[in-house]
Amino acid sequence: MTDLDRLLRPRAIAVVGASPTPGSLGATALATLRSYDFPGALYPIHPARAEVSGLPAYPSLRAAPPGIDVAVVAVAAERVPGVIEDCGAAGVPFAVVLTSGFGEVGGDGPQRQAELVAAARRHGVRLVGPNSLGFLNQTDGVAAGFGVGMAGRSRPEQGALAIVSQSGGMGLSILNRATLSGLGVSTFVSTGNEADLALADFVEDALEAGDTRVIVAYAETVRQAGRLVAAGRRAAEVRKPLVIAKIGATEAGGRAVRSHTGSLAGADRVFDAAFRQAGIVRVHDLEDMFDLATFLLRGRVPTGDRVAVVTQSGGGGAWLADTLEREGLVLPQPSEALKATLRAFVPDFGSVLNPVDLTASGISVEAFASVIGAMSASGEYDAIVVLMPLLDVAEEAIAGIAAATELPILGFSHWLPTPALRPRLGALAVPYVTSPARAARVLAAALGVGRAWQAHAAAAADPPAPPEPVTVAATGAEAASDAATFALLSAAGLAMADWRMAGSRTEAVAAATRIGFPVAMKLSADGLLHKSDVGGVRLGLTSAGEVGAAWDALAAVADGLGVPRRALVQAMAPAGVEIIVGTAVDPIFGPVVMAGAGGIHAEVLRDVSLRLAPVGVDEARAMLGELKVAPLLAGARGRPPADVDALAAVVSRLSAAAAAWRETIAEIDLNPVVVLARGEGVRLVDAALVARAPSEQTSEQISEQPA
Amino acid sequence: MTDLDRLLRPRAIAVVGASPTPGSLGATALATLRSYDFPGALYPIHPARAEVSGLPAYPSLRAAPPGIDVAVVAVAAERVPGVIEDCGAAGVPFAVVLTSGFGEVGGDGPQRQAELVAAARRHGVRLVGPNSLGFLNQTDGVAAGFGVGMAGRSRPEQGALAIVSQSGGMGLSILNRATLSGLGVSTFVSTGNEADLALADFVEDALEAGDTRVIVAYAETVRQAGRLVAAGRRAAEVRKPLVIAKIGATEAGGRAVRSHTGSLAGADRVFDAAFRQAGIVRVHDLEDMFDLATFLLRGRVPTGDRVAVVTQSGGGGAWLADTLEREGLVLPQPSEALKATLRAFVPDFGSVLNPVDLTASGISVEAFASVIGAMSASGEYDAIVVLMPLLDVAEEAIAGIAAATELPILGFSHWLPTPALRPRLGALAVPYVTSPARAARVLAAALGVGRAWQAHAAAAADPPAPPEPVTVAATGAEAASDAATFALLSAAGLAMADWRMAGSRTEAVAAATRIGFPVAMKLSADGLLHKSDVGGVRLGLTSAGEVGAAWDALAAVADGLGVPRRALVQAMAPAGVEIIVGTAVDPIFGPVVMAGAGGIHAEVLRDVSLRLAPVGVDEARAMLGELKVAPLLAGARGRPPADVDALAAVVSRLSAAAAAWRETIAEIDLNPVVVLARGEGVRLVDAALVARAPSEQTSEQISEQPA
Repeated sequence: MTDLDRLLRPRAIAVVGASPTPGSLGATALATLRSYDFPGALYPIHPARAEVSGLPAYPSLRAAPPGIDVAVVAVAAERVPGVIEDCGAAGVPFAVVLTSGFGEVGGDGPQRQAELVAAARRHGVRLVGPNSLGFLNQTDGVAAGFGVGMAGRSRPEQGALAIVSQSGGMGLSILNRATLSGLGVSTFVSTGNEADLALADFVEDALEAGDTRVIVAYAETVRQAGRLVAAGRRAAEVRKPLVIAKIGATEAGGRAVRSHTGSLAGADRVFDAAFRQAGIVRVHDLEDMFDLATFLLRGRVPTGDRVAVVTQSGGGGAWLADTLEREGLVLPQPSEALKATLRAFVPDFGSVLNPVDLTASGISVEAFASVIGAMSASGEYDAIVVLMPLLDVAEEAIAGIAAATELPILGFSHWLPTPALRPRLGALAVPYVTSPARAARVLAAALGVGRAWQAHAAAAADPPAPPEPVTVAATGAEAASDAATFALLSAAGLAMADWRMAGSRTEAVAAATRIGFPVAMKLSADGLLHKSDVGGVRLGLTSAGEVGAAWDALAAVADGLGVPRRALVQAMAPAGVEIIVGTAVDPIFGPVVMAGAGGIHAEVLRDVSLRLAPVGVDEARAMLGELKVAPLLAGARGRPPADVDALAAVVSRLSAAAAAWRETIAEIDLNPVVVLARGEGVRLVDAALVARAPSEQTSEQISEQPA
Repeated sequence: MTDLDRLLRPRAIAVVGASPTPGSLGATALATLRSYDFPGALYPIHPARAEVSGLPAYPSLRAAPPGIDVAVVAVAAERVPGVIEDCGAAGVPFAVVLTSGFGEVGGDGPQRQAELVAAARRHGVRLVGPNSLGFLNQTDGVAAGFGVGMAGRSRPEQGALAIVSQSGGMGLSILNRATLSGLGVSTFVSTGNEADLALADFVEDALEAGDTRVIVAYAETVRQAGRLVAAGRRAAEVRKPLVIAKIGATEAGGRAVRSHTGSLAGADRVFDAAFRQAGIVRVHDLEDMFDLATFLLRGRVPTGDRVAVVTQSGGGGAWLADTLEREGLVLPQPSEALKATLRAFVPDFGSVLNPVDLTASGISVEAFASVIGAMSASGEYDAIVVLMPLLDVAEEAIAGIAAATELPILGFSHWLPTPALRPRLGALAVPYVTSPARAARVLAAALGVGRAWQAHAAAAADPPAPPEPVTVAATGAEAASDAATFALLSAAGLAMADWRMAGSRTEAVAAATRIGFPVAMKLSADGLLHKSDVGGVRLGLTSAGEVGAAWDALAAVADGLGVPRRALVQAMAPAGVEIIVGTAVDPIFGPVVMAGAGGIHAEVLRDVSLRLAPVGVDEARAMLGELKVAPLLAGARGRPPADVDALAAVVSRLSAAAAAWRETIAEIDLNPVVVLARGEGVRLVDAALVARAPSEQTSEQISEQPA
């Protein structure tokens, strides 16, 4: 029993706008419901007719019998708010608004949508849509909407795949593929404009629904980020894979989404990070999504990356091996013992190496099953890919193959399926794809599911205690200072490399002497960006004399700029690996923390790892392990390993600060963090901090990015 | 008329091993030839029978009528050499050896293959195979082989696609896809073990054949690299796209290839570079290859990256836009003038932005054709992607769409094609794919073809004059020296940063004084690897005193190692962008030149660009532009642009040296090349050189990789 039970599993449905005119929205909606033999009560609502399509009709919801769960609304846009009022008056809790012409169009559409939402709130009615194709509950025979796949022309098998889509067209195309391949579907929801109920609501329902084992979703905008992340974690708990295609990643995609849904898309990298952290599998293609769903519905999820390939074509085996390794999977060779076992089933001119090649002349289901059984029993592999062509005779053979192993198994057919086999493809005992790259992508994505489940099972390390709340006055760049930034970071347990502020030559020399040579000096004028561009940086000063001379030079620069003579004197960091650590507040997901290649390479290489903040030190360490520059931290080229523990502590602490200070601080950059050898810690050399402006829409820089 | 004319377009064929036993290789080969109604003379060869399957048979080729062009050989492996002798005696110029059991198997297979080749050479007979499925010439009705697609069960349409495959199974799977989708085929060749005729031979034939417009090939091993590169260039000349799937890229793939063909696969990155340079399009997937061939057969090749998307689904348009941009294509917005034109055809609730959304309710072929026509005529786009579902009614609509534009156009159907439409898919006026990612990959790959043709049309810059030939004595690492390496490079016009060798403290100080401070000093013992690991490097020495102290320290290190006291004294390079430039001799393609991110990032980032050597400065500049660190060279973060001209000259000169010295020098590394600001040149700070050993199989290091 979920919150949406009366919506998705109703006993009585009214069709408002039901009409006898063929092709009209109302007529189609009524016909669709009847084509699925909806077992409950069905009430056409028509202003004038006493009967529509053979069913008794009512002039309004208020006049209809009580107990209606859902009103399917198919009237003109301007009449929809009135229907919602009727819902409220008649105690109808849910309205599925098929009508378009709201937020998705220009002109007064958005205003009309706002009025619709206000009416729904006022009357306690929950909405699907507007601009929705409705929903299909295949299990209970409820087809409350319209669209080719739901209109009785062709009908998917009943099954365990739930489909939730913000785009009606893309959702129906998944339904269409399921229908043409015999893959079973439990529910399909077109969420339309999501003026009220949104993607996460339906994902939550599907996670608890007994008829669903795999959920796929198409999303352009995520409106309930926190709930979606929670749903991902719940999906791992209940072992139901949650696969989402999130569109709007690139500039062009974002543009198209805006013109399509009237809303902005979030930053793509944050989606990647958040989905991954939540155990949601992100896919980027319609076909990949469908392939993956087909695979996952078999209920076998890989938990490791060791793949056995069993083939009857040497070329096909080589191509598979190539492609699987490109996707990050590995193909270990069988042990000597396993090879000895395999030799009993593999012809002499075949191969007992992985890929195991039974050769075209060695085709027999028994041999394939024996080889696959032996490879599975060996414990040396986590998944099987089998190359057998999808010919007419294949269906029974495939069942035999599937029974030979309990491991996840995927079929690759270099032949296209015969026309006779095509309608049953989705129901084959071994899920099949028809290209090596599709096989590799499916298996890699499925492994992502297995790993998300493992990560969920392992108790997440506790994030560090958050620092005290702080208030950052958003008074504009002119009034801020390096000192304020450094003090804030210090409150978060992040000490900068030893520093002092000097206002005179004497103070500078005294500061350097106290800090110890060598030191760096930087002009520290409030609001001064790009210190090095104006000659405001001196590095590697090794004596009082050099410091004095540097002061004179910086003072001259300050005079020239008309800013106060003030310099930051700071201990020079020894050489080490330069890493950037930073935080930002994503408009959709909130605070995030980032670690990446630092120094001049930060902007060029974009080698970064991202997480929702806060993260514990274990997760921080995992972030560092994902970087391309990870080998530098590990001690490449004979250098000693770097102090990754100290760096992970900085990442974790900064993430805690970002989470705690989310209301006041928009961005923090530590660049570079110089990571010394293991045991010697890190040096925070420079920091920049951007406060959130009161409007939360703009932000003002109160410190700066070091040069 | 090509060299292979009598093979591929024969007038008389003998089937040696023709047999009345159904299912035998010989019977199948004979039946296959007859099922295609071979119009020439057909002679079964059978040791005992006067007639086979209703045709007069002959006891041997020697006894058969004269004028036989091709002997299809389907006898046991041990009898094949004897048949080749018969070919020689009877004047049969070509033998297609279907028999397996040669180089592709263990035991005495390779020896048997060597004997076969020897027999063929002795008798002047050219071979296809052994272990070949034969070939199909669809244009002339010659099916000289066996396999499901050639065996009369189903038969591809006659058309313009040539297929050449080292793997019979993979080749047939392309043929199978062509057959099931109505895509026309001209020729299919299974090259088998390529004991004689190989991939490049058949590609060359297809390039000149009048019936072929697109060539696809599956390769595991390239045996005639130079000819394949030349074929790529010829393909650009004659405007026939050459698309190759080269397998064996990763370790597992390589392993599988070895066990499959008994030969090694080349280094993958060199294949990428060589193919690209030659204008050969490399694909990594069977489906991508087929999609691309289908697209290219329409004869429209994009020459720019500006894509217009025209859709009837907002979600589908967004998904396409997203995916196209992920593949590096761009979706410019229409000009104001174009938008004004489009408004006449697009409903108010649609969008005249790119993707142009006609909406599901706006579907009419006329509207689509008008929008596509206007976008094409605007000159603002290089290619069109149209989203229209592949329903039964679609075929005529698609023809109307194709006629509306002369630009390359690709269809994306979010619906799977209906069963009725499926057999004609390959012949649609607009080539179609069924997922956004496939659309993007096809278009990006097709643009690769267009760009290769453009590059071919632009006159290649002349490479620099090669340096004088040199001889490097491969006397082992102990005998070589930095001095020798530097001298060789100097002969190639590559001067190292000012250097002198010093054998004493006094010499070191004198050298530094002559060079000018600051200097670097490095222990220069012959055969000493990893100087910095043993404390053999001193940088930034600014005075005679420091040089003297450094000498003492290096001398102590030398004494500890038991090597002569000798130090390289070299001018310190100013700070700049660190780039690695190097050369190697690839076993398949010969000398190659590389440029990449240098210094410590070289090994971690693997940010390199590769070409066959030599390259001119224009090509060298193009290589540098491909690097991820290219923005550093261009002057990121307010730095001045680096001296890319000087760096390109180094790359070009080194490439000329690598080409000229290919017989004696295996590898040269310049790391780092320090690139200064524009006009200030580069500094070659360190170099390593590896000579080719006399065996050409092993090589010996005569200098070293700097630390």
